Amino acid sequence: MDEIQKNLLEQVAGLHEMPAGAYNIRADGKSVDRATTAHIDIVTKTDKSGIDIIIKPGTRKESVHIPVVLSQSGLTEMVYNDFYVGDDCDVTIVAGCGIHNSGDSDSRHDGLHSFYIGKNSHVKYVEKHYGTGGGRGGRIMNPETKVELGENSFMEMETVQIKGVDSTKRFTGAKLADGARLVVTEKLMTHGSQTAETSFQVDLEGAESSANIISRSVARDDSRQIFYSKINGNNRCKGHSECDGIIMDSAKISAVPEITANHLDAELIHEAAIGKIAGDQIIKLMTLGLTEAEAEAQIVNGFLK
Amino acid sequence: MDEIQKNLLEQVAGLHEMPAGAYNIRADGKSVDRATTAHIDIVTKTDKSGIDIIIKPGTRKESVHIPVVLSQSGLTEMVYNDFYVGDDCDVTIVAGCGIHNSGDSDSRHDGLHSFYIGKNSHVKYVEKHYGTGGGRGGRIMNPETKVELGENSFMEMETVQIKGVDSTKRFTGAKLADGARLVVTEKLMTHGSQTAETSFQVDLEGAESSANIISRSVARDDSRQIFYSKINGNNRCKGHSECDGIIMDSAKISAVPEITANHLDAELIHEAAIGKIAGDQIIKLMTLGLTEAEAEAQIVNGFLK
Repeated sequence: MDEIQKNLLEQVAGLHEMPAGAYNIRADGKSVDRATTAHIDIVTKTDKSGIDIIIKPGTRKESVHIPVVLSQSGLTEMVYNDFYVGDDCDVTIVAGCGIHNSGDSDSRHDGLHSFYIGKNSHVKYVEKHYGTGGGRGGRIMNPETKVELGENSFMEMETVQIKGVDSTKRFTGAKLADGARLVVTEKLMTHGSQTAETSFQVDLEGAESSANIISRSVARDDSRQIFYSKINGNNRCKGHSECDGIIMDSAKISAVPEITANHLDAELIHEAAIGKIAGDQIIKLMTLGLTEAEAEAQIVNGFLK
Repeated sequence: MDEIQKNLLEQVAGLHEMPAGAYNIRADGKSVDRATTAHIDIVTKTDKSGIDIIIKPGTRKESVHIPVVLSQSGLTEMVYNDFYVGDDCDVTIVAGCGIHNSGDSDSRHDGLHSFYIGKNSHVKYVEKHYGTGGGRGGRIMNPETKVELGENSFMEMETVQIKGVDSTKRFTGAKLADGARLVVTEKLMTHGSQTAETSFQVDLEGAESSANIISRSVARDDSRQIFYSKINGNNRCKGHSECDGIIMDSAKISAVPEITANHLDAELIHEAAIGKIAGDQIIKLMTLGLTEAEAEAQIVNGFLK
């Protein structure tokens, strides 16, 4: 990997060097490095582009890193990664994609990540998207995540996209079995003329299942964001969705949540708020000696932290 | 009017006798009584079914009642009523529709009410929908309301549909000029196998315009409700939408709000909550001597009051 790729890797996976545990690093459409452990296997798919990540039942305190970097302008790829997580696991999975585009053609990474999670497991899943490069070609990422969460399992999902992605269409779908729990935290910032569309669909199928979807976003300049979130309560369950958006400059944000109670014991709540940074917050920080721009930056950083 | 029609009239317009002020009473597709005042004129449309209600500038503390009753089974009507409210008015408008259907054919009333409201006016608009009759024919009402609200005018709209309407598709649209304010309170109860769809679209076009849409609904038995609410903030404005739904028995409720900030100074908030009556509320009332059914009825009445 060259310096540009190493920088992308650091941004999307926090990696300065090869990580401990299992990993698969993909650069410009090819696997460039891989490690497996006694409990975690990674197998290249033979029918299409992508890998199977197989985590044995009972695997605990282990991690898998599968970052993707693209630095060749004009590269377009569609990758399918399937995660099979056995019963009684406690694992951290770090994915993410960094694109550096210094050319005139669009670079694009589409990824479908499917999770098949057994019973009584805890999966922490972190996904970051990042773009750099001064070329006129677009940096496009369309991540799709589908989760089947087994009985009494818990998935925490953190997605972050705060810089440099010109266009993104994100979909996250989840089906929850009895007692399963899903917490999603999404952080999104768009600037320039970027567009971002985020869509969630959560089916609370199991008794005592619960989901909490939290989205925080900042739209600057002329950027445009649309947030969709569907929660279906099909059993005794709890669902909560929250979308807080800050608009700046000439940006636009839409929030379109949808909650449907199909069961007497479904409890569903949605909240959304869109607005600019409160003037008194800025003034307060300016009285402490910050410029208006510094005050805004500090508030935005705090909001997305 | 016969006894059935008089009962419908009382339910939808709270009228025991002819009201004071201007009124137009429509029964089974025909105007049966009308009164105008020095400031309020009512004119039958010549090109289609319906009336024009013309309220002169400066009209204050006056009211208009325009209830509709249908007791002939199988009657279907589409009525267009246009309200022209001048500047500096303060008026109350009571509309509503009652259907009694004892036959096997569907009875249906579709109404489009358009409001053209001038500057600095206050309009209180009350609309009730009610159905009775043991026939197998459906009682169907599809009210549509479109409002253009002039500078610094204020419209309060209360809609109630709590009994006997088998199917309803409701649409309320409003465009607000500078300083205009809209408050909508909707109360809805469905039972049996009824379906209700409610849809709002509010365009906050004017500087300092504001809208508050509050919907409270109860769905019983096998009934199904869908609530849509779109608020577009196109200027310095405030928008708030709130949907609280109680589900009982095997009922289903969906809430699909949509808020879009197209302007830096738009502040938009949406809240929705769907669930059944909290068990501890029922237990508390039962310890005071009520049966479970009485406790439920009391909570539902309080919620829709």
